[in-house]
Formats: sequence, C-alpha cells, structure tokens
Amino acid sequence: MAEKTYDVVGIGNAIVDIIARCDEGFLTKHDLAKGFMRLIDAEQAAHLYEAMGPAIERSGGSVANTIAGLASFGAKCGFIGRVAADQFGGIFRHDIRSLGVVYETEPATDGPPTARCLILVTPDGERTMNTFLGASVDLSAADIDQAMIENSKIIYLEGYLFDRHEAKKAFRNAARRAQKAGVKVALSLSDAFCVDRHRNDFRKLVREGADIVFANEKEITSLYQVNSFEEAADLALEDCEMAVLTRSEAGSLIVAKGETIEVSAWPAPQVVDVTGAGDLYASGFLYGLTHGAPLEICGKLGSLAAAEVISHIGARPEVPLDKLAKEHGLIA
Amino acid sequence: MAEKTYDVVGIGNAIVDIIARCDEGFLTKHDLAKGFMRLIDAEQAAHLYEAMGPAIERSGGSVANTIAGLASFGAKCGFIGRVAADQFGGIFRHDIRSLGVVYETEPATDGPPTARCLILVTPDGERTMNTFLGASVDLSAADIDQAMIENSKIIYLEGYLFDRHEAKKAFRNAARRAQKAGVKVALSLSDAFCVDRHRNDFRKLVREGADIVFANEKEITSLYQVNSFEEAADLALEDCEMAVLTRSEAGSLIVAKGETIEVSAWPAPQVVDVTGAGDLYASGFLYGLTHGAPLEICGKLGSLAAAEVISHIGARPEVPLDKLAKEHGLIA
Repeated sequence: MAEKTYDVVGIGNAIVDIIARCDEGFLTKHDLAKGFMRLIDAEQAAHLYEAMGPAIERSGGSVANTIAGLASFGAKCGFIGRVAADQFGGIFRHDIRSLGVVYETEPATDGPPTARCLILVTPDGERTMNTFLGASVDLSAADIDQAMIENSKIIYLEGYLFDRHEAKKAFRNAARRAQKAGVKVALSLSDAFCVDRHRNDFRKLVREGADIVFANEKEITSLYQVNSFEEAADLALEDCEMAVLTRSEAGSLIVAKGETIEVSAWPAPQVVDVTGAGDLYASGFLYGLTHGAPLEICGKLGSLAAAEVISHIGARPEVPLDKLAKEHGLIA
Repeated sequence: MAEKTYDVVGIGNAIVDIIARCDEGFLTKHDLAKGFMRLIDAEQAAHLYEAMGPAIERSGGSVANTIAGLASFGAKCGFIGRVAADQFGGIFRHDIRSLGVVYETEPATDGPPTARCLILVTPDGERTMNTFLGASVDLSAADIDQAMIENSKIIYLEGYLFDRHEAKKAFRNAARRAQKAGVKVALSLSDAFCVDRHRNDFRKLVREGADIVFANEKEITSLYQVNSFEEAADLALEDCEMAVLTRSEAGSLIVAKGETIEVSAWPAPQVVDVTGAGDLYASGFLYGLTHGAPLEICGKLGSLAAAEVISHIGARPEVPLDKLAKEHGLIA
C-alpha cells in the first residue's frame, strides 16, 4: 500500500458551539431532554439563545472535534463540512486549520448562516445540545473530495449527517468510494435519538459500508433494539469488523473479530462539561489505530483524550494531546 | 437624593475577545509587547488571527467586563458602547443583556464590523492584547443616553475610548452631564501605553471631571511621570477625590481624602489568564461603593472578583459573584 497523505479524513457538520451554564430548572422550563441532542430551526435557536445566560463560543461539531483531537495527537487529517461565509464560519475555519488540518470545503455564500449548537451545561457537567444546522445541510456530493478520501487510511463519518437527505447521499457516496479504494470506513452513531430517527439506514450502512462503528451504550442498544449492552455488541460484530463502545465512567469495550477488550475510564481530575467526551475518545482510538498501536492502547488513548476534554468547558482539547500521551507513556 | 435606577452605567468599547494560548516565542516572532494592549487595523487583525492557534470567543471590553461583574454581584447596571449588526455584535449584546444589564446602543448597520481583541495568553497566565476597534469607534455624542447617565449613582468611563477623537468628545460630554446631575464620575486609565498616548488629556480629565480614578502601578506612574508609586498616589489625590490603585499580586491601595487603605491580593487557586483582573477588581470595588460598604470591604470585594477571573480563560466571571462574596462573608 502506498503511503497515504492522511491518517483520517472526517466528514461531518461544521458547527460553532455556544456554551452556557444553566440549572436543572432551565431544562425543565424549556422542555429539554437532558444529555441529548435535538435539532432546532432558526426561530427556536433565536428564542433559546435569548433565554440562555452569558456564553462562550468555541468550534464544535462531533466529527470535527474528533479530527481536531487527532491533529492534537499529531495525526495528518482532513475535514469536509460546510460553513457559510460569515463570522461563525470564519471561527470554524480558523480553529480547524490552525491545527494543521486540511479543510477546503467552500463556504456557502447564500442561504442559512453557519451552524450553531446551543449547549447547556448543568452543574453535574452533563450537556444538553440544541443544534441549528444552518449551512451544514448544504453539504452535497460535489463537496466530497474524492482524492482526499482515497488518500486517507480511514474516513470517519458523522451519524448526525443522516438528518439531511442530501448530506446522507453525499456520505454514502463517500463510503462507497472509500471501500473501492481500500480505505477503512468508520462511522459514529452520534446520538440515541438520531439512531431512532434513522435506524434502518444506519443498520444498512453498518452492514454494507462500515468497517468500524463508534457508539455509546444508548446508541448501540437503540440501533439493535435490544436491552443488553452485551447482546448489542454481539450483533454489531456480525455487521462489521470492529465496534468501539463507550460507557462513560464505566469505560469502554472494543469488540473485534477474535478479541474483546475492556478499557477503564481514565480518571478525570474534575468533570466540568462532558461535551465532546465521545468525540475525543474516537480521536485517541483512531490515532492509535492509524499508528499501529495494539487495541488496548488505542482504547487507553481514547480514554485519556476524553478525560482531558471533560475537565473543562468546550469540546476541543486545551493541551497538546501528543504531549499528554507521552507523559503517560502511551506513545513513545 | 432620589432613588437612582442604576448603580453604575459604563461607557466603553464593545468588544468580543478571541483568546488563544501561545508560547513566548510567538510574542517575539510577532514583535508583541507582553502584557500590553496595542491597536491594530483590519489587515493586521486578519494576519495575526491566521497565525494564532485555535481560540475561544467570549465577550470582552474593559468597562463592559466591569459592568458584567457588577451585574454578577447583583448591581443594577447599564452599558453604552457600539457594535455592528453582525454575529459578533449579537454575541456581545446577548452576553451583557443576559446578565440583566440595560444595553440599548444601536448597532451600526454599515462601516467596520464589531470590534475584536486578539488575546494571546502565555503559559505564565499573562495576556497580550491586540485590538481592532471596528464599530466601537463609531460611538458618538448622540449615543450617550443622558437620562441613563443622570439616573445612575456612578458612571464609569473607559480610558481606551481616548484613542478615538469622536468617542473622546462623547465621553467628555458624558462626564460633564454627570457632574451637573451630581453623578460621580469614575475613570479607568486602561493601559500604560494608552496613558502615554493621551497623557495631557487624561490629566485634564482627572483634574476637572473625574471623582474616582482606577489605575494600576504602571498607569498611574506614567500619568504623573514619576518613578514611585507612593508619589503618584499623592499626586492623584490632589487631582481627584479617590484613587484606586492595583498592583497585581501586591494587592491594592485605596487613597482617599483622609485615609489610605492597603488591601492584600485575594489568593487565586491558580493563575490561568490574567485578562480582566483590573476590570473585575473595579466591579467589586464599585459594587461595594454603591452599596454603602466601607472602603476596605470595597477593596476586598475587588480582590475577590479579580481572583475569580484570573483562575480561568476569559475576562467575564464564571460563577455568580454575589454568591461567592456571601460565602466569604463580604456581603450579607
């Protein structure tokens, strides 16, 4: 196999997070399901923003967070996802490019503004997300850079994209092209509600197009409509080569043909905001996988990155993850 | 004296901060004077942003930070300062209004975008600021709401506004109107370089129009062009009723007719980013002053608020300051 230009190329929503703290009463008052993501329109976004407290803004997007984390580990990465030509789009583009990630998707010059996610963080560190997809929904097959995909070891696809028809088509194309070129396809299920909305499509993609699936307990049991985590893990392994399953403070389970590995959660110094925990777990895992690490080390790298990101506000790492991993002896 | 609607009304630049970490080498390479603020134009801002690492965005502006802190203590506040009708302007407006601050300045619908400050934070927690004033410079006499000013116990003016001719005029008008209405005028000197640029104007305003001056050691010695802090403090007291002088970890000195009070710095759990330390000191001090606290308690409230803001990234408080002050027995 020729040397690849990229370790991982991600395709996902290009989002700026607007993060504010709130109490439990705020979630109740606004009828928000704690810990989940819901889609909102421009009007709902304006209304909720008005009601929220002072916020900070920081680039987000599930797969974009994973790619940012991978770059922080030192991986060579690309990202595909659409912003608008506005100030939030400028923030997103700057933040991902400044990490060395190749990001060339043309910003939309008309239509809705850059996507934003209104994130409410309760005192227990749990986050509740309200996403206005904005310009992200304009991602189409024409935006998928085929050469980029073929020049990657792994492409990583965001389940949330399944919420839009055009994006879903683009996404399936990308998976097909990757398979033909011998590129591994990894898929994140993103959110249990998202799995609910697209169960059949997800199962089809996992069965036919994905080599590796990333999910948490709620997502994988929702995908297979079973009650037990173990049962879901077995079913996932019938559909693809590897399932990487996270369980918050209970750690993670890596299920591959011939081996099952349990990894403990990395102790976090403090839990401030769990936004990005799953995304950053995937960063560490994919970094290990594309750099020849044993699966157990891949899991530990994931746990370490997740522990870093939940110890502060926001879903992007605040310290260089390569340095952190070296300090803990996980990479040389 | 009739009951006032506002405890404090602030007039200042309306800015969104773009905050990134950097190492000392970055400051050297870009020829940035560590710990100071410099003004940059749109082109320089674009160039520096391009070179910076991933950032977070958060509302800023020196006097706006003070007003946000005051609101967090529970004070009734207003703010006057101009943004553009763009996404950054929306961030600024949201963040200050969501604290209960009355903010009605019309956004500019043409001309430059909302002001931004590119803040580089070195590993020692020191911040170096690069400000593109953008729409802030459009503040004019017409924006100064006279009723608001007359209905305030204190108006608080930002030295940085002296960098623009129109704003300076608006600002002097406001001071004059306040004086006529028996409203106290407080002035922040903002930055030693800013004092250098406008020494004569500042001295004139301190002598003729200000009742209270806020400054750090560098600023006050620069204003009076003397070498010793004590000498500068004496000269300040000849010019106005009270000087509130901060000295970072050496605490602060409150010099008033008949009394001089030294206040220790409040121990900060960690020094992450000193941006806003002076601004938040002023929040605590002005809260105390407008609520009948003795000067020593005013100083302690200032020190407490400063310690909170330097313990995290960004210049706005992350915990309710009224609660914090109650926990420490500073307010009932």
